[in-house]
Amino acid sequence: MLALAGIPLGYRFVFVDPSPSAPAAAVGEQMTCGYADPLAQDALAACLVVTYEFESVPVEAAEALAQRVPVFPPPYALRVAQDRLAEKSCFRALGIGTAPFEAIDSLEDLTRAVETLGLPAVLKTRRLGYDGKGQVVLKRAEDVASAWAAVGQAPSILEGFVHFERELSLIAVRGRDGEIAFYPLVENHHRHGILRKTTSPAPALTLDLQAAAETYAIRILEHLDYVGVLALELFEKGGVLVANEIAPRVHNSGHHSIEGSRTSQFENHLRAILGLPLGDTSALSHSCMLNLVGALPRHEAVLVVPDAHLHLYEKSPRPGRKVGHITVRAESEAELAARVAKLEAIAGVCDID
Amino acid sequence: MLALAGIPLGYRFVFVDPSPSAPAAAVGEQMTCGYADPLAQDALAACLVVTYEFESVPVEAAEALAQRVPVFPPPYALRVAQDRLAEKSCFRALGIGTAPFEAIDSLEDLTRAVETLGLPAVLKTRRLGYDGKGQVVLKRAEDVASAWAAVGQAPSILEGFVHFERELSLIAVRGRDGEIAFYPLVENHHRHGILRKTTSPAPALTLDLQAAAETYAIRILEHLDYVGVLALELFEKGGVLVANEIAPRVHNSGHHSIEGSRTSQFENHLRAILGLPLGDTSALSHSCMLNLVGALPRHEAVLVVPDAHLHLYEKSPRPGRKVGHITVRAESEAELAARVAKLEAIAGVCDID
Repeated sequence: MLALAGIPLGYRFVFVDPSPSAPAAAVGEQMTCGYADPLAQDALAACLVVTYEFESVPVEAAEALAQRVPVFPPPYALRVAQDRLAEKSCFRALGIGTAPFEAIDSLEDLTRAVETLGLPAVLKTRRLGYDGKGQVVLKRAEDVASAWAAVGQAPSILEGFVHFERELSLIAVRGRDGEIAFYPLVENHHRHGILRKTTSPAPALTLDLQAAAETYAIRILEHLDYVGVLALELFEKGGVLVANEIAPRVHNSGHHSIEGSRTSQFENHLRAILGLPLGDTSALSHSCMLNLVGALPRHEAVLVVPDAHLHLYEKSPRPGRKVGHITVRAESEAELAARVAKLEAIAGVCDID
Repeated sequence: MLALAGIPLGYRFVFVDPSPSAPAAAVGEQMTCGYADPLAQDALAACLVVTYEFESVPVEAAEALAQRVPVFPPPYALRVAQDRLAEKSCFRALGIGTAPFEAIDSLEDLTRAVETLGLPAVLKTRRLGYDGKGQVVLKRAEDVASAWAAVGQAPSILEGFVHFERELSLIAVRGRDGEIAFYPLVENHHRHGILRKTTSPAPALTLDLQAAAETYAIRILEHLDYVGVLALELFEKGGVLVANEIAPRVHNSGHHSIEGSRTSQFENHLRAILGLPLGDTSALSHSCMLNLVGALPRHEAVLVVPDAHLHLYEKSPRPGRKVGHITVRAESEAELAARVAKLEAIAGVCDID
C-alpha cells in the first residue's frame, strides 16, 4: 500500500522481506532475505530513503543502515516500541496517562508487583512475539508462579487491568521539518486479539478528546524526533485517555484513510520521510474499515455495496491471517452502519480466526 | 493507472506496448512488441480478460484476440472510433446531434461539400494520426486544393464549423450485464489541441444537460454492445449538445475521478470488463485535473497546495507530451478556483507545448 501510494508520485520501491510469499513483488523489486543481509543492506543504502512497516525489524539492522542512508522513523523509535518497559516508561516520563505497571525480572518482582498493583493484572513480555508467549492474565495470587512460567521467565512488565469503554487510535504524522498532522481519532474493535473493525471518525468524537490525544502524541513525536506515521493506541474511559502502545509505522487502524481521508496514511508517510509537505488529513466522509481475516469474500458480494472498496494483499488465506480489508464510506453514521451491517453479513468476511 | 486500481482488487497485469519506454513495468509484466506479435497474443490470451487504453491499437489484433479471450471494449467499438466517418455516421443513425459533415474521397467531393456546408469548415482525415496531417481548417473557397493536398488526399470528412461555448465530456461505463453508470459531465479546456484542464462537475451543470448527454451515451453504449468505460466528447452551445467524438477507453478527462469520485474510472473500467458490479460514480467534491505537459513541476510546489495530488507517468519530458497530472479537490467552486490558480501559477505545470 505504500508503493501504491508512492508510484504515482514517481517513486520506485525495493522491498526486503525474509518471507518468500511477501506480497510486494507486484509493485517493486522484492528481495527475499534477512534485514541484515549485506546484499539487502547495500540495495537499501542505494535508495533515497529507507522505511519499515513491520515493527519487529531488528533495530541493529536499521541502525546500521542509518549510517549510510536516511532511515525513518528513527531506529530509536523502533527500539522504544519493541520494549514494553521502555515504551511505558517513555509514556510515564512524558506525563502520558497509562495503566499502572511494574518491571518484572524475577518471580520475586512479580509477587511484589501483584501486591502493589492488585488483581486482575496482565503479565506481558517486554519484547514482542517471544515464542508466542506474549501475555498472561493473572486473576488470583496463586497464578503468580504459573504466569511466570508461561512467559518463559522472560523480562516482562506487569500491568494493572484497565477497565476501558473503548479502544481508540490516533494516526499522527511528522515531517522531516517537524510539521505535524493528525487524523481524527478512530474507534477500533478487536476479536481474539486481532483488529476487526475501525470506524472513522470515532463515534461521538469530541474536540476535547481529539485534543487530549494530540497532546499525548506531540510529546511522543517530539521526544523521539520522529519522522513518518505513528499510531498511538489509546483506551478511553469516561472521556479520559490512557496510552496503550505506539506503533512506529503505518497502521492497520489507518487503512480506512485510503478512501476515507483527503490524503492516505501511506501517502503521508512517504511525504514525511521524503521531506515533502504533509497532505490534508481531514476525513472525506464517515468510513469504516473491516479486516478480512482468514478467508476472502466473493468480489461481487463486497463491490455491490455502495462505496465499498476492496483491498486484497495476495496472502494465502489461513486462520487468523489478515488477507485484506474493505473500506466503506457513507455521508452519515446511520448510512455507514447499514452498509457495514451488509458487509459484516457476507460469509467469510468476518472471520475465520 | 488501471493497474494501480486493479492490484488492490487482487488482479495482476500483463502490458503490451511497442515502446520500450512505456511506463507500466512498475506495476506489471511489460512486453515490448507489436500488438499482433504472436508472443504478445499468447500472453494476452492467457489472461482473464483483455482491454486497451489506446485507441490506435490495430482492430485486427483485437479481433484475433477476441476469438481466444474476452476483449472489452468490443473491437467493433474500436473500429468505429478509429474512423471519423463511421463514428459520425453512427451518431447520425442514432439521432445524436453532431456537426454537419460530408464524406470526402476526392477533390470533387470536397468542392461539392464546401458548397453544401459553407465555410469555415474543417477537413479531417477519417483515420487518426495519418502522417500527423490530421486536420485543416478551410476559410476560403480557394483553400480547397491546398487542404486536399495537406491531408495527403486521404479519405476524409468535411465538418461544418461548430461555434460552441464550451467542450464537455461524459465518462460512461457499462458492465457485462448491461448495467450503465455515468459520471457527472466535466468541462474541458485545451490548448494547441492538448487537454490542459478538466473541471468536475462541469460548472453550471444542470440536470437537463446531464440527462441529454446520458441519453446520447445510452444509445451509443447499447448500439455498440459496449463493455467498459467510454468517453463521449461533446460541444455545448446554449444548452444544446452536439457529439464530437467517442473514446473507447479510460479517458484523460476522467483522470480527476481517482480523487474526485467515489469510484475512479479505472476501477470502474476493471469492474465492468470483469463482470463485477459497477461502483458509485458520484462526485466526492469539486475537483479539477491539470495535465502536466512537457515538463515536471517540483513535488513540493504541488503538494503544498491543500488536497492536491500528483500523478507522474514516468515518461521522459518533451514538449507537448503529457507526463503527468495533478488533481485538486475543494468543497466549493470558489475554493477550487483559488487552488487551481495556485497550481497553474507553478512554473512548469502549464505548460511546455
